[in-house]
Parts: sequence; C-alpha cells; structure tokens
Amino acid sequence: MTATTERAQDTSHLDELAAQLRVDAVRAAAAAGSGHPTSSMSGADLMAVLLARHLRYDFDWPEHPGNDRFVLSKGHASPLLYAAFKAAGAITDDELLTFRKHGSRLEGHPTPRLPWVDVATGSLGQGLPIGVGMALAARRYDDHRPARIWVLCGDSEMAEGSVFEALEHAGHERLGNLTAIIDVNRLGQRGPTRHGWDLGAYARRAQACGWHTIEVDGHDVDAIDEAFARATRVTDGPTAVIARTVKGRGVSAVADREGMHGKPVPDADEAIAELGGIRDLSVRVQRPPAAVAQRPPEPRELRLPVYDQGSDVATRNAYGDALEALGAARTNVVALDGEVADSTRAEAFHKAHPDRFYEFYIAEQQLIAAAVGMRALGLRPFAATFAAFLTRAHDFLRMAAISRTAITVCGSHAGVAIGEDGPSQMGLEDLAMMRALPGSTVVYPSDGNATAHLVAALADAPGIGYIRTTRGATPVLYGPDEDFPIGGSKTLRSSADDRLTLAAAGVTVHEALAAADVLEGEGIPVRVLDLYSVKPVDTRTLHRAAADTGHIVTVEDHRSEGGLGDAVAEAFADGRPAPRLTRLAVGDVPGSASPEEQLRDAGIDAAAIADTARRLLG
Amino acid sequence: MTATTERAQDTSHLDELAAQLRVDAVRAAAAAGSGHPTSSMSGADLMAVLLARHLRYDFDWPEHPGNDRFVLSKGHASPLLYAAFKAAGAITDDELLTFRKHGSRLEGHPTPRLPWVDVATGSLGQGLPIGVGMALAARRYDDHRPARIWVLCGDSEMAEGSVFEALEHAGHERLGNLTAIIDVNRLGQRGPTRHGWDLGAYARRAQACGWHTIEVDGHDVDAIDEAFARATRVTDGPTAVIARTVKGRGVSAVADREGMHGKPVPDADEAIAELGGIRDLSVRVQRPPAAVAQRPPEPRELRLPVYDQGSDVATRNAYGDALEALGAARTNVVALDGEVADSTRAEAFHKAHPDRFYEFYIAEQQLIAAAVGMRALGLRPFAATFAAFLTRAHDFLRMAAISRTAITVCGSHAGVAIGEDGPSQMGLEDLAMMRALPGSTVVYPSDGNATAHLVAALADAPGIGYIRTTRGATPVLYGPDEDFPIGGSKTLRSSADDRLTLAAAGVTVHEALAAADVLEGEGIPVRVLDLYSVKPVDTRTLHRAAADTGHIVTVEDHRSEGGLGDAVAEAFADGRPAPRLTRLAVGDVPGSASPEEQLRDAGIDAAAIADTARRLLG
Repeated sequence: MTATTERAQDTSHLDELAAQLRVDAVRAAAAAGSGHPTSSMSGADLMAVLLARHLRYDFDWPEHPGNDRFVLSKGHASPLLYAAFKAAGAITDDELLTFRKHGSRLEGHPTPRLPWVDVATGSLGQGLPIGVGMALAARRYDDHRPARIWVLCGDSEMAEGSVFEALEHAGHERLGNLTAIIDVNRLGQRGPTRHGWDLGAYARRAQACGWHTIEVDGHDVDAIDEAFARATRVTDGPTAVIARTVKGRGVSAVADREGMHGKPVPDADEAIAELGGIRDLSVRVQRPPAAVAQRPPEPRELRLPVYDQGSDVATRNAYGDALEALGAARTNVVALDGEVADSTRAEAFHKAHPDRFYEFYIAEQQLIAAAVGMRALGLRPFAATFAAFLTRAHDFLRMAAISRTAITVCGSHAGVAIGEDGPSQMGLEDLAMMRALPGSTVVYPSDGNATAHLVAALADAPGIGYIRTTRGATPVLYGPDEDFPIGGSKTLRSSADDRLTLAAAGVTVHEALAAADVLEGEGIPVRVLDLYSVKPVDTRTLHRAAADTGHIVTVEDHRSEGGLGDAVAEAFADGRPAPRLTRLAVGDVPGSASPEEQLRDAGIDAAAIADTARRLLG
Repeated sequence: MTATTERAQDTSHLDELAAQLRVDAVRAAAAAGSGHPTSSMSGADLMAVLLARHLRYDFDWPEHPGNDRFVLSKGHASPLLYAAFKAAGAITDDELLTFRKHGSRLEGHPTPRLPWVDVATGSLGQGLPIGVGMALAARRYDDHRPARIWVLCGDSEMAEGSVFEALEHAGHERLGNLTAIIDVNRLGQRGPTRHGWDLGAYARRAQACGWHTIEVDGHDVDAIDEAFARATRVTDGPTAVIARTVKGRGVSAVADREGMHGKPVPDADEAIAELGGIRDLSVRVQRPPAAVAQRPPEPRELRLPVYDQGSDVATRNAYGDALEALGAARTNVVALDGEVADSTRAEAFHKAHPDRFYEFYIAEQQLIAAAVGMRALGLRPFAATFAAFLTRAHDFLRMAAISRTAITVCGSHAGVAIGEDGPSQMGLEDLAMMRALPGSTVVYPSDGNATAHLVAALADAPGIGYIRTTRGATPVLYGPDEDFPIGGSKTLRSSADDRLTLAAAGVTVHEALAAADVLEGEGIPVRVLDLYSVKPVDTRTLHRAAADTGHIVTVEDHRSEGGLGDAVAEAFADGRPAPRLTRLAVGDVPGSASPEEQLRDAGIDAAAIADTARRLLG
C-alpha cells in the first residue's frame, strides 16, 4: 500500500486521487463479487476534481443549508461514490470493503441510509430532475449565493424523457446553481449508446433547452477543473459539462470494451497494479460558507377551512382551501403543480402564496422529482395532479419511497365519478399504486371537513402521503371539529342488529349511506363505515364489524385489485377467522356518461349496493 | 343550415371545411354541455387540409395496411376529430351530437370504440411515441412507400418527457414516414404554456433530435397545404410542422382568452353565426394505394425450448429461448428492448431475428408506446425490461388497457431475489400495477418449462399480457409436455390430511416446497399450490383448498398490497365463507444482500414459511 497523508487539493495530485478512486472501485467490487467498477472508472477524474476542488460540503453536518449537494444519478457507479466518501474521510477503508454485503450501508445503489446521500438512485434518469428540485429549494435559502447542485449523469440515461423534463425546467427557471456532469463513456449496459462519443449531440439538446454547455476530455483533470470553474461562475442558467470518457479507463482488460458492464474486473490484482497500486490519499473537502441566518418561521396557528354540515363541497376544493391555510401556518410548505392547479384547486395556494407555488407544466416525472429534491433541502412539498396522471410518475414515487422521503401527493378527479371526460382522465388504479409503496399513507376523504383535517395530518406524516380527491361536490357529513386520525375510520350507521357492514371511502360513502337508508326502510339495518384512512386501514373497527355483522361489503370507485377491497382483506390476512367479504368495484373500461350514470354502470351506486345487500342476505 | 354537397378538395373550399369543423365542434360541445371546443378550433385548419388533401385512408377498411394513420395526441380536441369523421362521411350529424352522452361511441377523449381510432388518447404526450411505433411497423409493410403516420400534438404536451423520447427515437430511426403537427395555440389548461408562441423553441428541440421542421401559420390553408406537401416529400427523416394557431379561433368571445379551456363556448348560437353558420360539406378522403401483397406467413410449428426436470434454469433465460422460438413460428412477433436485452434475455430473439428486434434504449415510455403502435398495425409485440422499470411506463400501460391493446410485457428481475443490486432494481410493485389494468393477464412462472408455455399462451391472450421472470436459476419442476392454461394452477403437494395450503408463485414456489418437505418430516402435511396464473387466478382450486384445509398462506416476493395475496383474497370476495388467510410478503425496504439473505430478511423463505405454518397450527 502506497500510504500517504498528503492532501490531494493540488492539481498535481488530482490524477493520483482519481487513480485511488479507480483502485478503490475495483477493490470494492472485487470484495463484493459484483457491482459496476467500469462505470465508476469512467467518472473517476470528474469525481476527483469535483471533490478536491469544487464541492463545498460539510460531511459532519449534511443538513447544512449552505452545503452543495451531489447526486449520483448514475447510481450503479456507487463504488465511485463510496471511494470518494473514503477519500473524504467519511467512511473507513474497512467499511468500503463491506460494499453490497448484508447489513452494509454501502448498497449496490446509493440510498439515504448513508447520511451524505440525499436521495436513492439506481433507476436512471432521476438524478437530474431531483437536482432541479434541489436547485429551486437552494435558491429559497440564499438567492444571491445559493448552494450548487452537482449531478453526475451517465450517457445512457440521457435517453430518459425525465431528463428532458429536467433540461426543460432548469433552462426555463435559469437555474444558475445547477451543474449536470455527463459522463459520456459511450457504452450502455447492452452495447453502444445511441449517440456514442458524439458530445455535440448532448450539447445541442441541452442548448436547445437554454443550457450552457462545456465539452471536455473527461480524463484531463486540468480541463475538468477549468470546466467546473466556468460552470460555477455562470449564474444566469444551468450548465452541462459534457465529458468524453472511457468506460473502464485505466485497466486495459476492460477499457472501452463491450460486455464489461456491471461486473468486477476479471483480475483485480492485475488491475490494481496497472492503476499504480493502492493509495491512501485523503481530501479536505471545502466547507460551505457560514449558514445564512434563516428567518425563524413565525409560529402561526393553523386555521383550517370550515364547511357547514349539510352543504355540498367538492373535496378537491377543500384540498385547495386547506393547503392555502397550511401554507399560512407553515412557511416551509410549498405547492407543486402539473399545469392543472385550476382543477386540483392548488390554485388557492398559488393565489395566497405565489412565491411558494411551483408550476412544472405537464411533466409529472419532474413534478414528483422536484418534490423529492425540495424535501431533501427541508421544504414540505405538496404535489398535485389528476390521480390518473400520477401513474406517469410511478417510478419516481417508487424511488421516493426507497429514499423514505416525506412528501404529500394529491390525486384529484378520482374514479368514474368524474363523468363525461371518460376513462383516460379517471384515476382508477391510483390506490393500488400508492398503497404498494413502502411506508406510504393513503387517505380518501368523503367530505370537506375530513379533507381539511387530513391535509393537515399528512403534513406531519412520514413517508409518502397520498390524498385522493373527488371532482364533484358531495354533502358535508362531519362537523369541523371532528378528528380524523391516520389509521382511523368513521362509523356512520350502527346498531346492535346490523346484518352486514358497508365499507366505503370517498364518493362511495355517500352511495353507501343512501343504500343504508333504503335498506333501513326495508327493515334491514346495516352498518356503514367511512374508511377515509385506506392505509393504514382501521383494522380494529373492521374486526369489530366482522364480529358484529359477519359480512363486509366494500364499495370503491377504483379497480377491484389493490384498492379498498384489498385493504379490508388485508385486515384479515393474519390468519384470523375472516368474515364474508364482497367487493363492489369498477370492472370494465367505462365510456363517457354523467357521474350518476357512471356510478350506476360500474355497479357502485346506492341501488347496486342495496341490491347486493339484499342478495347476500336473502 | 347552409347545405351544400360540394366537395371540399379544392383549396378554395378548405377554409369553408375548416369553418364547418369549428362549427361542428361548437355544436357537439354545446349538445354535450362539456368538452373542448376551443382546443378543437385552433387545429381546425390543420385538420381540414390534412383530411381533404393529404390523408390517404379507407374509412371502409380501417385495417388496410396501406392506410395512413392519424393520431389525435391532443385527445381532448375530440370534437375536431369527430367533426372530421362527419365530414368524411364516417358518422352522421345525429351521431355527432351524441358526443359524451351515455352509450355514445364519441367519448370525451377518443378510444378505439370507433373503428377509425387506433389508440385511446387523452393522457397527453402519448400520441407521438405511439406514432413512432406505427411508423416503424409501416416500414415493415412497405419499405419504399410506407404509409404515413400523422400525429396532431398540442403545445402543452410537448413538456412531457415521453415526447422527447419520441423525438429522439424518430430522429435516430430516420422515420421519414412520420409527421408531427404541433398545434401551438399558446394556452394550456391553467394558463400560458412555457414557450407561448415561440415556434422556434419547438423547432430547436426537434432539430436537435434530427427532425426536419417547418414553421407555418396554422390558419393559412395554403401555407399548411404546402407544409404538408413538403413533409410528405421528405423521406430521410421525420418532419414537425409547427403551426402558430389561436385557441378558440373564429369566435371572438373565446379566441386567445385564458379561462376558456375545456368548456363549451358561452353562446353557441352566436358562435355558430360568427363562424358563418352550419354547413354540410363532405370530403372525399383519398384512398391508399392498393395494398402491398403481403408474403403469407409460412405456417411453422412452434417448437418451444425444453428443460430437463431436475436441472436449474432461470425463468428469464426461458423467456428469451421461448420468445426466439415463437419468433420462428410467427413472423408477426417482434421483440422490443429498453437497453437491457442481455439481462431480460430478449437478446436470444435478437440473435435469431435481428430484423424484428427493436432497441429503444433506456426510454420505457417509448418502449411500451411503440408496442402499442406496432400492435395497431398488426404486429404482435413482446416488450421487456426490468419489472421495476415498467413503473416508468405505467401511464402508457393504463392507456393501452383502455385501448384494449393486445401486447405482451415481460418484467424481469422480480423481487428481492435479485440479491445484491438492492431495492432500486427490484420489481416489488409490478403485480399490483399489472393486475389493476383492466383486461390484463398476469403470469409468474416458477420454472423454465412453465415459462416457455406461458410465453406461447400470452401470444394469443387478449389485452395486456404480463409475464414476470426471475433473475436466478431455479429447479425445473415440470415436464416439457405439461399444460399451463391461463387461469390454471399446479398442485405440487396434496394429501387428504393437509392442514393448510401454501399458495406461491415464481421463486416462492421453491421455498414453499422446501417448507412443505420440512413440515412433512414433522408430521405436518401441507398442500402446495403454484399459482402461476396470478390473474385470472385459479379460483376453483383455491376454493377446494379452502374447503380441504381451511387455511391458505400466500407467499410472494412482492409487496403485500395488490399482489398474490390480493389475488387469493379476491377469489373469496364474492360473499362466500372464506378460509383463514395469511400473507407473507416483502414489508420493508430491502438493502443489499445475497438472494438467500434477502428472502430470509423478507420473511418469505422456507424457514419463515415453515415457522408460520407451525405458529398457525400450533
């Protein structure tokens, strides 16, 4: 081992530092028996220069608001990141060699189990749109000298449309504190990329979106240093440093060869020797400037909107009203829109707090990615679009859950109840999608006051909080002082003689109530539950209903798979005796029709519920 | 009514035809009481010129392989499309006025319930990537004079990353038979678009991706005519006709005004008068050239791969082998890849049938969209990527289901069983996503022979077929002549004394078998079901198992929400007495570890299953 305690800040040492990063990447992958050393080696010089000369980061205080942020968008190059953490003194060499092993923080792809990793990466094309959110948030802290966001992208991932959404948005917002570093090593997983070493292809796309671009030899540390310095000086827009690199650079057995993706180098010892042996350089990473004194948020009482019982209000309207109120009470709450704020009613927040409202146009991946990035810098984002279109951002929600990000997502225009617009606009799979995210909270209120309270509750929920809202107006069922704890439910009809239980949420609560009234008139008392908390669901109340009535009918404006019916079934999936269960849900592909006709056609309206109850009991 | 039977082919009549389309859009929306007339009116001149002068289409034979195709990517402008269908004589004026009404084929957004609509639109940003698939397929029919694909895009939807994926791919493939018409009316739903009337902004982006561009006044029919003619002459790459238009053009009460999106014009009679009144022009749309004689596919016997019982094979390998065999038997089978064919093993198909293999790089939205487009032109696409990354294309799958498209999708690297790569690469929500698609078929084979048979079965399945494959090798359980009908299952262990049932699929089948053997040794006989058909699930066998054993334990390498546990629960969701149910599934966010450690940590390995059985029975 070539042990040296010399600092690697000097340019003369940058090549040595880069070599160390390569060696450590090779060592980590060899110890693991898997991993991506070749993808790490192409970016080693870029990382060495960034770490030693440009990044401003306090490893002892990762939340420092003045910290630059580094996002490894090409998350499979994690050995490079971990080698950099070692060089910066954040982890030991011993820990480096735990890479990919059971229990190690050094996972195959980076996750926030490491305090210096803000967001999980590994699904390509996510780092840059998340970086856009970070850059927007950093400007809020310090408009004059905002922290810089550095995102290291692979060339393969530039094919993802989400990257284009980020290029568009960053250019539009003139994010001078955002630098994309594109590691153009020419080789993807399967073979050559679409553009190979045509750096101009990437430059033209970025320029078309209003970016500055710098093309550079990605293995010339002086040229890289100058490129990063230029990027730092530019403040009127984002900069892409487009670097020509060689995959597997430095190890002749793998350099620029196909078929060498995602596996350890064939002979690690030989490779390490070729790279000049093991080093022990350490880097003193620049500290950020003293934290800008944050104006302490004035503590304000949350004054939620109030709706009169018996009046009609759309829960989407209540979402907008409540979000506006939440924004008044908490200065870190921001609202994000996908060009439908007039429909989701996030427009109310925009009117009241225009400086905390972010328009992302019709780009749902960027919408959710920005929320994730903003959350990493301490904001509390609420992102809203039609429930149907959240499916566009499913992979971003999945990765956000892996990051254990705490953001709130609102899906409006749920279900067939939207009416005439037809199936393309109907959120019918969103509960399945959001429930399956690990650590998520899913609520689906049936009235305005419930909506208001649940918006407030989600502002403190861990993980991804999802609120599903309805387009049309529905009767206000609850008083404004009613509590709506996460994991709770409301029992709207109940008697000792109940012969079955109707479990509903959102718009079907009103259908269930109407059905219960009809049945009551026929001498058939039934229990009605409003399961506004779909995940976690109120298992205690369900167990009691099962014991009391023996039969639960779930009614949902959603597919039968993965939604409310599944949530209720799961409450009995621990081996206990189960009640009889019946699911009423949307089976076929709807067409256009009025909301009432839609509910009828789907078999989830009051008449269908009453018929089902009669059939089951008769 | 200004009735005239004159043909509108002459340029002098194009303005009149455009006015008729506007009037009919206004009338349809007025009759419906909802809809998007203003978005229709901006594109009316573009549509008039296309219909009367450039489109080659046989309305009596929509499947004609020589037909041009028209995709209304801005699906909310459906009144414009339906007005065009009326002008072409495909529908009557009476039917036009059924727009958005219960039972009408003229839905709020177009769907293939109309024979001249190939794919459902209404989720923005989908038409162009689907058009890319159509253009690729059209080249297969006639390389010299392929049918032309015309896609009318809105300007708002150009913000979607999926549009960029299409621009990239079409440019890369030099799709000379693809024309995008961009209706730049400056106003989105909520307000002005990002680029307003800056036609150059769109041109620069398209040009950067290798497109020809033509900027045009979208209300000058002569200029439009010339632009479309130029686009038709260009054959070395795709062309974007970028048209400056006015939203609500022709009606002063709404023209170029904010707040007029998605609603009927305030006074229809006044608007119709301002537009010159109702007309009854008809258009004789050009017929396509005589259909190219298709080489009749040589009928070849399907010779599926065969694996020896007792040997080990990864189901992903069997997928590749079977797809290769299917390609040999059926010449309309094509394979689509998202730059991971070496991992999904679709590479086997590539090697055998390179001319029917399509590489879309890392752009999963384009991957699925192309499959949808190709299917519309008669191909039978199999699209594969990691199961985790299919979430990227969730909205495309949702819309494909609304289109009732018959395509097959393969998700490889399912579950925690992939091991060290960690959670970003693990498909853990895919069953929930795919099950919730209406009309889908979902299979998850446990061995190579099952995989081969299920690949063949999915080639004839209606709707979206999904096959989930496993990264690592697993023992071959079944003989090569075993049948695997959709909706079936395999009972691997069974006796009259079974005390509970283990229901598994894919990798957990092997864990369940190992657990059953251990329990058998302890004198606890249990039944083991391989539920390879997750949707539809084998309800009959499940009902029998419930009756025989009283308790079913589901074991899945997936989240507990929406997957196998839900499928089994749904088999008892018709009010019948249910057995006791227990779900073993992946609860937390995994880290990196070996496959065995992952299964153990998730509590879905043989030991966990056996422990659960003992606990439940003891």
